[in-house]
Amino acid sequence: MYRSHTCGELRQRNIGNEVTLAGWLQTTRDFGGMTFIDLRDRYGITQLVFNMETNKALCEKARTLGREFVIQAKGVVVERSNKNPKMPTGDIEIIVSELNILNKAKTPPFTIENDTDGGDDLRMKFRYLDLRREEVQQKIMFRHQVGHETRTYLNANGFLDIETPFLIKSTPEGARDFVVPSRMNPGEFYALPQSPQTFKQLLMVSGYDKYYQITRCFRDEDLRADRQPEFTQIDCEMAFVEQEDILNMFEGLIKHIFRTVKGIELGDFPRMQYDDAMRLYGSDKPDMRFGMQFVEMNDLVQGKGFGVFDNAELVIGINAENCAEFTRKQLDELTDFVKRPQIGATGLIYLRYNADGTLKSSVDKFYSEDELKKWAESADMKPGDLLLVLCGNTDKVRKQMNELRLELGNRLGLRPKDVFKPLWVLDFPLLEYNEDDNRWYAMHHPFTSPKKQDIDYLYTDPARVRADAYDLAINGVEVGGGSIRIFDKGLQAEMFKRLGFTDEEAQKQFGFLMNAFEYGAPPHGGLAFGFDRLCAVLNGVESIRDFIAFPKNNSGRDMMLDSPSTIDEKQLKELSIALRG
Amino acid sequence: MYRSHTCGELRQRNIGNEVTLAGWLQTTRDFGGMTFIDLRDRYGITQLVFNMETNKALCEKARTLGREFVIQAKGVVVERSNKNPKMPTGDIEIIVSELNILNKAKTPPFTIENDTDGGDDLRMKFRYLDLRREEVQQKIMFRHQVGHETRTYLNANGFLDIETPFLIKSTPEGARDFVVPSRMNPGEFYALPQSPQTFKQLLMVSGYDKYYQITRCFRDEDLRADRQPEFTQIDCEMAFVEQEDILNMFEGLIKHIFRTVKGIELGDFPRMQYDDAMRLYGSDKPDMRFGMQFVEMNDLVQGKGFGVFDNAELVIGINAENCAEFTRKQLDELTDFVKRPQIGATGLIYLRYNADGTLKSSVDKFYSEDELKKWAESADMKPGDLLLVLCGNTDKVRKQMNELRLELGNRLGLRPKDVFKPLWVLDFPLLEYNEDDNRWYAMHHPFTSPKKQDIDYLYTDPARVRADAYDLAINGVEVGGGSIRIFDKGLQAEMFKRLGFTDEEAQKQFGFLMNAFEYGAPPHGGLAFGFDRLCAVLNGVESIRDFIAFPKNNSGRDMMLDSPSTIDEKQLKELSIALRG
Repeated sequence: MYRSHTCGELRQRNIGNEVTLAGWLQTTRDFGGMTFIDLRDRYGITQLVFNMETNKALCEKARTLGREFVIQAKGVVVERSNKNPKMPTGDIEIIVSELNILNKAKTPPFTIENDTDGGDDLRMKFRYLDLRREEVQQKIMFRHQVGHETRTYLNANGFLDIETPFLIKSTPEGARDFVVPSRMNPGEFYALPQSPQTFKQLLMVSGYDKYYQITRCFRDEDLRADRQPEFTQIDCEMAFVEQEDILNMFEGLIKHIFRTVKGIELGDFPRMQYDDAMRLYGSDKPDMRFGMQFVEMNDLVQGKGFGVFDNAELVIGINAENCAEFTRKQLDELTDFVKRPQIGATGLIYLRYNADGTLKSSVDKFYSEDELKKWAESADMKPGDLLLVLCGNTDKVRKQMNELRLELGNRLGLRPKDVFKPLWVLDFPLLEYNEDDNRWYAMHHPFTSPKKQDIDYLYTDPARVRADAYDLAINGVEVGGGSIRIFDKGLQAEMFKRLGFTDEEAQKQFGFLMNAFEYGAPPHGGLAFGFDRLCAVLNGVESIRDFIAFPKNNSGRDMMLDSPSTIDEKQLKELSIALRG
Repeated sequence: MYRSHTCGELRQRNIGNEVTLAGWLQTTRDFGGMTFIDLRDRYGITQLVFNMETNKALCEKARTLGREFVIQAKGVVVERSNKNPKMPTGDIEIIVSELNILNKAKTPPFTIENDTDGGDDLRMKFRYLDLRREEVQQKIMFRHQVGHETRTYLNANGFLDIETPFLIKSTPEGARDFVVPSRMNPGEFYALPQSPQTFKQLLMVSGYDKYYQITRCFRDEDLRADRQPEFTQIDCEMAFVEQEDILNMFEGLIKHIFRTVKGIELGDFPRMQYDDAMRLYGSDKPDMRFGMQFVEMNDLVQGKGFGVFDNAELVIGINAENCAEFTRKQLDELTDFVKRPQIGATGLIYLRYNADGTLKSSVDKFYSEDELKKWAESADMKPGDLLLVLCGNTDKVRKQMNELRLELGNRLGLRPKDVFKPLWVLDFPLLEYNEDDNRWYAMHHPFTSPKKQDIDYLYTDPARVRADAYDLAINGVEVGGGSIRIFDKGLQAEMFKRLGFTDEEAQKQFGFLMNAFEYGAPPHGGLAFGFDRLCAVLNGVESIRDFIAFPKNNSGRDMMLDSPSTIDEKQLKELSIALRG
């Protein structure tokens, strides 16, 4: 062992001890006759002291060391005269008697500090240096802890960690697969799993009844910001359960993680119907840290001669409390915000409920003071509040208002990073229609069970069929979701038919699962959490990247490895494939 | 919830309770007025009782049910008149008052019993049914437990579970990679990791100092029996350590697993030099459950006119205790065994030390009784023992004698399944020469550090360089191995040169690692255990397959999924690849 202690553990009680530390040189400070070195490892920083008077040679040696040198120092722990209460080791320092250079270091291309001078690309190329920065280390260690507590809870509840294969079968349904040519089976390919969905269902058929796995999943999608081609899922499934059992079990998991990792006691999670979430927040994952529910105003505003409202499918408002005194500039900013092409509203209408009780709107000429008063009442406005109104096609205006609501939440400080508001969203639609492909798609996946009472609509009004499907949102981010599964071969076959599969296609791609349903499949259901995302949400940050040790950039490249890369013609030949010109 | 209890938990104390059970119908037995059903889940079996007299309709319904039906039964727990002490639930049974069929089942293609009538191929095709068999479930649950205890130990010792990427860069060194065409980077490929080796070393450079991961690895090798193209590794690495620290840490892990999972206290693990293992056992993973060390006999047997021995590079014997009375037939069987083409010896020579003190060998005419006495002494023979002798080229004869020793161990019952003998094998050679390719290969991998005192031989006598490399063998099976790594860019570059890399090739393939070594790399080392293999060894079985939920066959096919399979031309086009004709 190159060390007797880490750089984070020495305290007053160790004064007088002979110790050996090893780590990285964070900084050197020379003060005339003294040299101080901050020695760093993942546990902390300890101050090393060298004195020109008592040991000139050693002090001079210390002065030759550069940033990020790996050194080993032996010495005695002494009390600091000038204590640093900000550091856990700030009461002590080491009078060094022996100093060994374990490895030299070139000057790193950026500083190893939270507030580094390195840009994104440079840090990704030198990820092994970026990973030394304390804020990144904290995130990697945080992830470890969340994984550990997840396992602790699930193991304690009788779940079995069962590994499922990575080299599986490609299916065109869902997102695009990554595929792997098989050398031993020329012309054939494996696919990497988008999730272990079918395997965990088969495990239920096999009687394992409580399964989990923290496992990598793969999707070859065009990458949006902060999407990774490989990501990690906390994947779970249970048999002989109903939706309520699953919600309780995994609400328990999230509470356990918050309790153990964050020291936060979450109360029972509220639940909301998907339809209500869309109606009141324009989102299937509303941020519940603040109110500002949508108010539907069609009855109040239509038929008064204001064409914009009259022609709109839906008119909705939100009450921004205490914002009546927003300046013209602030209102213009919000108007510009909703008019951005990504949001696409045509305009924003406001109503000020002034402190003196008067009302002032941008459409005064169409509405009387009495009528505006009714607007105010419908939105529970008090003097000093501001009503913001959007209108248009129902789906679009809800999405636009959702964006405006979140933006206002940000501007008004209503989305604090250290407050956590979970929400179960229930009863998602089973299907959604895709106009481009002219067919229905499963909103969750084709194995999700329709609600019993809605099954008949499958044939008459597919849009109306609700699923036994649920999502967990925290602070407006979807951290997990799942469903009760179909476990009847006939219903599963019917489902594939609804999705445009021929019987033959369904059998070819999912025959193994449908056949399994014929040999005694129990009722079952489950869910999966996005592990990377969950870690980010728990830290109140948006980017998942620093919770992944070696992430890829938005082109799916690993900048450090310079991968993907070309392979030899010999290798291609062995795989019975060729590049296209 | 479909059940109040599992099928394994009801006992005497539950008598009188109203319960609901759910599970699979294992067997039905009709006795005139009564019907008994064994209801099964992964926790056990509980007997359900139906009575024609008290509830005719229900009893008749029960009689319609087939094997593997999924049913739910409500009823009251009563004491059995005819107790079954072999079953944990054998004291009780359930008088059923309500019976629900949750799902029907076709008659399975083989019986769901340990002693099933299903052949290998059939069981693999219907793996979801095979996984219901109790002996397979025990293995899958055993694996869960080993994984859990591995994490418990490593977490308690400050290790961080850090995930490394699956979509990495292909390198021609080592085994063949599986590759993944990149759609977004046409003509380029990712590779699936053969191990996280370079990443865990980078994590050491990044300061994480104790890393582990239980992770999937991939090798596109021609599959021998019981090799899988994807397998799982318990992968570990530590910084600021020497070999001794690593051996102690992971000896502790294996002891912990044996203690917690098997209830076995292992003493301290013996250690053996690689050279001694080869000399005494002809194997780098000797089975230490029995002795029968090799005795080198050149000095005793050569120069006496027996040409076969005289011309041999090495003559070795093993003492089979108490086997002097082996019959002619038994000796012929052993001779046939060593002459099989896979082993390839030309013959087997024996010396009987009879109970009456006389000596009898198959080469009597070349050796006097006195000379044979010396053979016997050299091998510590007692009256009643049998000496078996092989000769030939050193490497070959050691391998042959290793096979013979293990075969004798089997025949003599010296390899009991419930005795566990671990052994560290140390100081492996750094390099091995491949005659076909006319170059040196790294015996472990190119990142393994040569022993300091042997570095000079790198240039003069590469075969002589020993590595800081170690393997852990248990009962003759290699369960893990590792090494202290090179952490100096110059030495790593030199190593690649020895392996026939040009500077350019080394930089292209491993530049990221060598560059990392320039920015402050700490001394580090680690090891990896084969998780599937470890589970098998802990159970005293050879096959890893039943410790894997969904294994592939020896052609790398998943028989259940029928994968790999063809993919659409559209998909190939998107990936910029084509099949070769």
